[in-house]
Amino acid sequence: FKNACKYLQDFVEEVWKMGRSDPRKVIFAMKMGLALAIVSLLIFWKGPYENVAQYSIWAILTVIVVFEFSIGATFIKGFNRGLGTLCAAILAVCFSELSLLVGKWEEVVIVISIFLMGFCSSYLKLHPTMTPYEYGFRVFILTYCILMVAGNRTREYKEAIITRLALIAAGAGVCFLVNIFIYPIWAGEALHGLVVKNFKDLATSLEGCVNGYLKCVEYERIPSKILTYQASDDPLYNSYRSVVESTSREDTLLGFAIWEPPHGRYRRFNYPWKSYITVSGALRHCAFMVMALHGCILSEIQASPETRQVFSTELRNVGAEGAKVLRELGSKLEKMEKLSPGDILKEVHEAADQLQEKIDRRSYLLVNSARWEIGRLNKELKELEDKENKQLGFKSLSGTLLDLRSDPVLTPPLPIDASKTMFTKQVSSPAQISLNVDSCLKGDECRTYESARALSLATFASLLIEFVARLQNIVDSFEELSEKADFKGPNISRIPTAKKRFGA
Amino acid sequence: FKNACKYLQDFVEEVWKMGRSDPRKVIFAMKMGLALAIVSLLIFWKGPYENVAQYSIWAILTVIVVFEFSIGATFIKGFNRGLGTLCAAILAVCFSELSLLVGKWEEVVIVISIFLMGFCSSYLKLHPTMTPYEYGFRVFILTYCILMVAGNRTREYKEAIITRLALIAAGAGVCFLVNIFIYPIWAGEALHGLVVKNFKDLATSLEGCVNGYLKCVEYERIPSKILTYQASDDPLYNSYRSVVESTSREDTLLGFAIWEPPHGRYRRFNYPWKSYITVSGALRHCAFMVMALHGCILSEIQASPETRQVFSTELRNVGAEGAKVLRELGSKLEKMEKLSPGDILKEVHEAADQLQEKIDRRSYLLVNSARWEIGRLNKELKELEDKENKQLGFKSLSGTLLDLRSDPVLTPPLPIDASKTMFTKQVSSPAQISLNVDSCLKGDECRTYESARALSLATFASLLIEFVARLQNIVDSFEELSEKADFKGPNISRIPTAKKRFGA
Repeated sequence: FKNACKYLQDFVEEVWKMGRSDPRKVIFAMKMGLALAIVSLLIFWKGPYENVAQYSIWAILTVIVVFEFSIGATFIKGFNRGLGTLCAAILAVCFSELSLLVGKWEEVVIVISIFLMGFCSSYLKLHPTMTPYEYGFRVFILTYCILMVAGNRTREYKEAIITRLALIAAGAGVCFLVNIFIYPIWAGEALHGLVVKNFKDLATSLEGCVNGYLKCVEYERIPSKILTYQASDDPLYNSYRSVVESTSREDTLLGFAIWEPPHGRYRRFNYPWKSYITVSGALRHCAFMVMALHGCILSEIQASPETRQVFSTELRNVGAEGAKVLRELGSKLEKMEKLSPGDILKEVHEAADQLQEKIDRRSYLLVNSARWEIGRLNKELKELEDKENKQLGFKSLSGTLLDLRSDPVLTPPLPIDASKTMFTKQVSSPAQISLNVDSCLKGDECRTYESARALSLATFASLLIEFVARLQNIVDSFEELSEKADFKGPNISRIPTAKKRFGA
Repeated sequence: FKNACKYLQDFVEEVWKMGRSDPRKVIFAMKMGLALAIVSLLIFWKGPYENVAQYSIWAILTVIVVFEFSIGATFIKGFNRGLGTLCAAILAVCFSELSLLVGKWEEVVIVISIFLMGFCSSYLKLHPTMTPYEYGFRVFILTYCILMVAGNRTREYKEAIITRLALIAAGAGVCFLVNIFIYPIWAGEALHGLVVKNFKDLATSLEGCVNGYLKCVEYERIPSKILTYQASDDPLYNSYRSVVESTSREDTLLGFAIWEPPHGRYRRFNYPWKSYITVSGALRHCAFMVMALHGCILSEIQASPETRQVFSTELRNVGAEGAKVLRELGSKLEKMEKLSPGDILKEVHEAADQLQEKIDRRSYLLVNSARWEIGRLNKELKELEDKENKQLGFKSLSGTLLDLRSDPVLTPPLPIDASKTMFTKQVSSPAQISLNVDSCLKGDECRTYESARALSLATFASLLIEFVARLQNIVDSFEELSEKADFKGPNISRIPTAKKRFGA
């Protein structure tokens, strides 16, 4: 019993918190209660048409099924309810006439007609194109049955049909009035907010990935939830996962938003809600790269910290600039402003170019030369490294190379020997080379592993550059959206700063 | 009018096709019609309790809302309906007593109670933990209103409540009987099939990616649907997209499957349906790597065909072995067999090792040495390449190196010169080196691009190897599932083959 009390207390607390964090939910619940209370007044109807009180439940039923969180959802449900009811009414009239005509076979006709309607509506609603109208089919069959039952009992099909249609209309009317005129909650607004949130989440995730990689964050044991792609506590993982997972929510909101009339900041008819989905899709295309970057952190094969250090400035720069672009786009979207003149991607492209240049100049750090058929390269690399070590004060730039250079076949001890072997090798036959190679291949898995370690940094960098390349997509789709939705120009007072910033 | 006819004809054809491709849908619709027809017989009830005919609509309503495609979904809806109705009945009894007590304030009490119930149920159903019971809340408020309305009208609350509860129970009973005993459709079966399909899809996608990469498939213009992550016609893209997108469907099916009683091949109580989701999640974790591989094909920066050719055997091998493992696991899962003794991953690991070895030995092809501070490496690489070219008959192994070796500062024309510069450089000060480097940095974006091209193959290979590493996850989660679900041992007659195959 004590446990139950504790559980109940926790639950109440959590429910209270939910209301504080999102007051829209409390407001929605109050609106729903209000609509129900208004409709329930019909129970006490004492005026003409005494049937109203008796059948008031149909108005209540309509409120219960039509009233939804957002205006768009209410509209689409109301439309479904209306269309379903209308079709049902027409068919009910036809079949009731028929059943009256056939006389003593009336009951058979009714049962068969119900079977037929049930079959058709359940079958058609399974068609993929009918998914948004699933509810309409349910309403259709429900209304059809109600009308047949009521008509059959009172023998006055037409009156029964008209009373119920009027009550259903009254219920739907109350729903729309309450939902639209008291603190409306718009699905379009929610969709807008979701896309903005995705931008911010992805920026956080990107920064987290790059910084984590440079800090050589390693998972002691990778949470099995990440390995099986389930929700986990890892904030870095959760941010990009929410971007990837938001597809179905976006589609639902889009389905509602296109039903909403122009309102608030979305004053145009045919507001381009679809373009929001496109922007979000382009963002998701980038998110998959962040996912792959995170994969490098999760991987068992990790580049040595020293090598990462060499490229750290450039990597960090690209990460920071990339996140800045995402945040900038996110805040532009939030404020519904067009992009400032000048190339928003200029800085991140520069950062990526610098990274690429650095890779270009230091790519020997990204490969393990110990096994190349031309052994003396190691020698030279070692010297170059030693020099750099002195310059930069590192113990070792590439653990890989230092550790594995001790192979006697491939790395002669002196530079003069190196140049000798060079000449020897140049005249050696292909067969000899492969012999040499074979002789040092046996049992050196460890070395292969070292080579993979070195390359893993290259992979991280390439993925990051690919991420930057994909940013162009987002910018393009954002511009398309801002044209179609007629966003306002960039804030005048901010243009000088913006210009300076983008060097335009 | 002609258009409308054409449209209608197309629609009928399509609907007909739907039935032929998935007869379950026709059967479901017929079952639904049957259940409705049975329940509608209550309309003509002539026995004792004459109220039954009048209120028969409640049984029909129950069938309409409870009858669902799969057994699990029907159960969960039935449970919701039952619980919601029960709670509503209890509260309705309490409030009806109260309303009778307060005398002339009766109507106020009723309206306020309806408002309160509406508020509470709409608020609580928004809590994330309540999502599966959303429908229960709707039923609750609906039933509560019905009982209050009916009771208020006839002044016999208790009788009204009992009649309606009995009718609702009758409707639910008909639903369960028809749904379970006539050609049952199980959500568990569908979940099982979906996971098996995911294995096959991913195998197809992996093979497509690797083969496409080796054939240097390039998109003339990447479909913007891929760039914004929308459904597209590309089969390669669609296969992995469906694996990634199946999360929400899997979750829905899981929610239904855990409600289903033991049946058919799933004879255990507490059947581990959750483990299916885990296996599918591990598979999805691999799918993200295939997605990244596809990203390499989509990328603007592409490795030269010649370089790809060098690694083609190994890459193709890894792709083929990886797909084989996926197909093997998929068919094991389909047949519900345990894994054969021996390591299913042995061959794919060997293939990956070979790829890694090849990379290790030829990693000079993956980097662009033209810009290294040690210029004469190029020379040696050239010679090595030329030798290989003769061996293999290629025009050029690495377009990169050949194209860019003409830099006068970095590549001296003769081997003897090369060894000379080597010695010179070794004594040159760091300042001099950086000077040399700077002098050749200006305006050579193209070269940086070449370097990126070369590295992109390294990225593809690393991602492929990471994919292989992630396979272990799938195997682990599959083994966990096969233990928990008590799969049968591998087919006896096949063990010799299996043993031979895995070398156990």
